[in-house]
Amino acid sequence: MCGQRRPFYQKYSMDKLLIIKIGGNIIDDEAKLSSFLKDFASINEKKILVHGGGKLATSLAEKLGVEQKLVDGRRITDRETLKIVTMVYAGYINKNIVARLQSYDCNAIGLCGADGDAILAHKRNHPVIDYGFVGDIDAINTNLLKSLLDQNISIVFASLTHDQKGQLLNTNADTIAQEVAKALSLLYDVQLIYSFEKAGVLLDANDDSTVIPTINPSRYEQLKSKQKIFAGMIPKLDNAFAAINYGVKKVTIGKAEELEKLINGEAGTNILNE
Amino acid sequence: MCGQRRPFYQKYSMDKLLIIKIGGNIIDDEAKLSSFLKDFASINEKKILVHGGGKLATSLAEKLGVEQKLVDGRRITDRETLKIVTMVYAGYINKNIVARLQSYDCNAIGLCGADGDAILAHKRNHPVIDYGFVGDIDAINTNLLKSLLDQNISIVFASLTHDQKGQLLNTNADTIAQEVAKALSLLYDVQLIYSFEKAGVLLDANDDSTVIPTINPSRYEQLKSKQKIFAGMIPKLDNAFAAINYGVKKVTIGKAEELEKLINGEAGTNILNE
Repeated sequence: MCGQRRPFYQKYSMDKLLIIKIGGNIIDDEAKLSSFLKDFASINEKKILVHGGGKLATSLAEKLGVEQKLVDGRRITDRETLKIVTMVYAGYINKNIVARLQSYDCNAIGLCGADGDAILAHKRNHPVIDYGFVGDIDAINTNLLKSLLDQNISIVFASLTHDQKGQLLNTNADTIAQEVAKALSLLYDVQLIYSFEKAGVLLDANDDSTVIPTINPSRYEQLKSKQKIFAGMIPKLDNAFAAINYGVKKVTIGKAEELEKLINGEAGTNILNE
Repeated sequence: MCGQRRPFYQKYSMDKLLIIKIGGNIIDDEAKLSSFLKDFASINEKKILVHGGGKLATSLAEKLGVEQKLVDGRRITDRETLKIVTMVYAGYINKNIVARLQSYDCNAIGLCGADGDAILAHKRNHPVIDYGFVGDIDAINTNLLKSLLDQNISIVFASLTHDQKGQLLNTNADTIAQEVAKALSLLYDVQLIYSFEKAGVLLDANDDSTVIPTINPSRYEQLKSKQKIFAGMIPKLDNAFAAINYGVKKVTIGKAEELEKLINGEAGTNILNE
């Protein structure tokens, strides 16, 4: 699909669309979540929020005696874990976020990828590790999303997809945000924001004052070659550049508490095409 | 709102819409649920499914040590119980139903009343009993529902509403089905079906062969005066007549396994206006 980023039916002036991934640490912090949702609700542009879970799923699993399996540090989604994340992500967290947004005069609708066939995926087929009920995304139903956005309804995605064969699949929320952003970049001027507890891409992972304001491909190569970017950030940045190269207009990484500044380019790290 | 059932902008030929409430006993029975969802998926008309939970919420509450409080035989929804029903109804049950319908080529979307402001309610204000987080319905967002139905998307409602102040509310699924049916009777020819484990309204509650095929208001009075209708059915029938009087075209009560026959008038009890 690369290279198809601007089909011939492109409108030259497209509506802006914000796609915002919210990190688990924010979901776990009642005051931060509340403040974030107020900021989100006050955005005038069309918008989509993507969330996973925080510690809630882990603590429910503990209470129910469902052991969390890790293989090479990666979480395995067995049937009982899938049940728990479906309850917590698509039920408790998703519906409470939606109800709160309604109270802040933001008409929102909570979806998982099965709803309206929004996000089609397949069960991950890994040569070595069986991740269990984990999905890799195949397609986004842009018609449905556009129809909701055009009714001024904001979409709140819980990080679950489906395989069209009746199976729900646990799916990385960063990846959902990225794939939805790429698909909708054909219809909107998309800014994708990864919001979390840090101020952006940092030169020193423990010092928020070392945030790098902009990174373009050549600067990225430079930073990587000088080992100035800490390892955990590299997959995030690779994804960000993939989105930018596909047609997403701007990708911003930064602190959830500074949402307005992230949108306006006054905070966080902006990933640029050139 | 009574008396407003046919506004001046009525279309004389309206599309048919089926609104089907599914009973908890069916949800608890894997084989019956599967068969029911296949039948539901094969309906060609526009359609809405309404469900609550079955025993799943009760068993999760037991596992988590959340005591179920009853006052005068009525269940009280305290904060912990609300959390459980939100997880089970809007999460686990709703998303699994939607994923299965997708596998049967039925494009469905799962909503609770907070989603898209679909069902607005207020916390029940009872002079004697504090029911906790239980909602009584104030308004249905027919624009949203029509927009989805007109895209050939079937709607699956979990029995939760919201109060526009950020609070989710546990709400009787029979009542949701009835209120959605009434509101949409302005836009569609609505048949409301209460499907459960019995064959319809029975003269003998334990004998499916005693189903009463049709009940109109005069027959209903007759049956009640002769005490031929068992007590538990009276609120259901009162609701059914309220829906019919408002403008719902047909209300049918019957066995979930006979969905096609219920739709065609070949099984169950049909509640008629005259």
